[in-house]
Amino acid sequence: MAIDFEAARAMDAADPLAAKRNSFVIPEGVIYLDGNSLGAAQPAAFAALDQVSRVEWGQDLIKSWNTAGWFDLPVKLGDRIGRLIGAGEGQTVVADTTSINIYKALHAAMGLRPDRKIVVAEGGSFPTDLYIAEGVISTIPGATLRLEGVDAPAIEELIDDSVAVVLVNQVNYKTGSLRDMSALTRRAHDAGALIVWDLCHSAGALPVELDASDADFAVGCTYKYLNGGPGSPAFIYVAKRHQTMARQPLSGWWAHARPFAFERGFDADHGIRNFQCGTQSMLAMRALQGAMAVWDDVDMAALRAKSMALTSLFIELVEARCAGQGLSLETTRNASQRGSQVSFAHDGAYAIMQALIGRGVIGDFRAPATLRFGFTPLYTSFEDVWSAVDILSDILRSGAWKNDRYAVRSAVT
Amino acid sequence: MAIDFEAARAMDAADPLAAKRNSFVIPEGVIYLDGNSLGAAQPAAFAALDQVSRVEWGQDLIKSWNTAGWFDLPVKLGDRIGRLIGAGEGQTVVADTTSINIYKALHAAMGLRPDRKIVVAEGGSFPTDLYIAEGVISTIPGATLRLEGVDAPAIEELIDDSVAVVLVNQVNYKTGSLRDMSALTRRAHDAGALIVWDLCHSAGALPVELDASDADFAVGCTYKYLNGGPGSPAFIYVAKRHQTMARQPLSGWWAHARPFAFERGFDADHGIRNFQCGTQSMLAMRALQGAMAVWDDVDMAALRAKSMALTSLFIELVEARCAGQGLSLETTRNASQRGSQVSFAHDGAYAIMQALIGRGVIGDFRAPATLRFGFTPLYTSFEDVWSAVDILSDILRSGAWKNDRYAVRSAVT
Repeated sequence: MAIDFEAARAMDAADPLAAKRNSFVIPEGVIYLDGNSLGAAQPAAFAALDQVSRVEWGQDLIKSWNTAGWFDLPVKLGDRIGRLIGAGEGQTVVADTTSINIYKALHAAMGLRPDRKIVVAEGGSFPTDLYIAEGVISTIPGATLRLEGVDAPAIEELIDDSVAVVLVNQVNYKTGSLRDMSALTRRAHDAGALIVWDLCHSAGALPVELDASDADFAVGCTYKYLNGGPGSPAFIYVAKRHQTMARQPLSGWWAHARPFAFERGFDADHGIRNFQCGTQSMLAMRALQGAMAVWDDVDMAALRAKSMALTSLFIELVEARCAGQGLSLETTRNASQRGSQVSFAHDGAYAIMQALIGRGVIGDFRAPATLRFGFTPLYTSFEDVWSAVDILSDILRSGAWKNDRYAVRSAVT
Repeated sequence: MAIDFEAARAMDAADPLAAKRNSFVIPEGVIYLDGNSLGAAQPAAFAALDQVSRVEWGQDLIKSWNTAGWFDLPVKLGDRIGRLIGAGEGQTVVADTTSINIYKALHAAMGLRPDRKIVVAEGGSFPTDLYIAEGVISTIPGATLRLEGVDAPAIEELIDDSVAVVLVNQVNYKTGSLRDMSALTRRAHDAGALIVWDLCHSAGALPVELDASDADFAVGCTYKYLNGGPGSPAFIYVAKRHQTMARQPLSGWWAHARPFAFERGFDADHGIRNFQCGTQSMLAMRALQGAMAVWDDVDMAALRAKSMALTSLFIELVEARCAGQGLSLETTRNASQRGSQVSFAHDGAYAIMQALIGRGVIGDFRAPATLRFGFTPLYTSFEDVWSAVDILSDILRSGAWKNDRYAVRSAVT
């Protein structure tokens, strides 16, 4: 028999991270299982926004570039995120968007392997990774993209000594499957290739070990499990050993060794600042900084344990309570091989997700037929999991999702 | 005899834009002449930040991408800015940073002139323009940069039929000199070249006529005269006639024709959205939107008239009241040939600016020896101008700026 409501509450009572939920704004009547798309807000982020807008901008104006430390904030925040992703100091900077940071990282990697012209990536990647790879390739004569596909070989088999760089997601955005960072990095290095890790669905969701895995580059967003706010700035990691030689062509003034000398020629900074480009939004940076304070005392092993327990409970409850309703699990049953999300396929996925949202359970639909649920260990409770499955089960058994109001819209919005 | 305090106040009383100052936060005791570096804040921007953070993010979470119109905000705001820079709808989008937008524009222009390899730019440009031009060139075999320099020919003479694109600032960041957009655009087109206008120091400072001048591309920031907040997102303009063919390599998912179809291959949007890349900060976008409302009823001819009157008064008062104190005007005396700023050279410029700031007059120092003052027509008063010169005159005549406390710091900070 499946776990019941009281047992779920008992799991919350025993959860060492349970109190973290109080740091977040969870709207009344909402079970939020979409933190892997947009993380929830925190009063600490609002307070940081108040400070940067009303005081630093409003009262101190231009002086804040120095007195409030604005100029160095991207590097300071980079190091803060670095502590969550196993990156020692001076290797991570918050800047621009994930897409732009992929562009920088791929260009830099290609530049470090000038005799090789092949980029390997995942056909099932979040598409912007592939689109940016196409953009990078368009500027490098002879460069081509080699894709792992549904019926194509696994990515490990695509890596040979003609490959310059491998671009890969640690956690797949759709299925939640988790790659072995150490093993795949070693596989790339054995072939003489470099590797760029996209951490969008893993940073803040589980322990990441960039330095220990010997990773070359990494990028990621901060608006999912890092809760930086809608479209908050991304980050980029460049391993120390590459920083002297690695170059990227978005060589704006923040990438210069002496940005305030206003020299006519570009002279690259030889540290992580070379992976900046232009002036960043300090409103967005401060909101992210406010949102990051919640991590100060988080044990990443406890975070991972809770994440696995949440996703395991969800799978167990769905399979017990929604059996025979047409759902099939798209995420691996092996908790150690998945991120902090679970996907189920169903022919009526779009309408079912609309019905769930109508009942306050917010997840994601992914075309053509995926129901995707994210579990943010800092604020998702076991009771949330129980209640979400209770509502899902009710919607499926009652057939409520077949109502016109849920089914009429196009599957792609 | 120079104008006196009462006469300056009379100019304010007759100023049709005088009431706009009430929309801004001007700190007590500050005369802010640095809006050309960071524009002042507005309560309307704070209110927009409160709305996007506490309500749209905090309460509505992921739904706001649709219900609050987040996804279309960059295009909507682009059109709003377009109305200030003479750009018809669908040609301007708010995205990324000025540096990154220069990269996009130069790449696109080079792609439209594949048989030409020369980029012409200004040696006296704000440096990031040149650094980015170097970055673009580094990705295009055979491409080179041809610079207008202090002792080199004027930019018009550098443009011949080997030139692919001219990158030029409408208003020089340091001297304030204003270029004739129509004439230089025609000169470029006559040689078969394209032109990219950097509007950082002109957008919101004076009427700009991109469409009427037949400009090809333009970029600019929104944190100076558009008052969008520290590091607020930049904009890019692409003339309608180029949008079908122009391509830029930062081909992130927001540049795709169908971003939510999650297709594996990149298929460029054929409108201005192709000049987007990745997910933008909605906190920064909303703050900018709040800041833009002040423009709704501004007559750009009146704005320009006031700007010229402010800068003319400043020059007249400085030359009358600070005569013999070692200042020499670096900005043209011809008001029609300058932007909304005035620069004076002085051997003690750094220390003098520190002394001014100590007395509440905030301008900028630019190495090696420039005092730069910006006059934002929406909130700078004629009384501000009078008082600033009064304090400058006092500092110079008393020699207070020669105190150790102002002179010790390095000239580059």
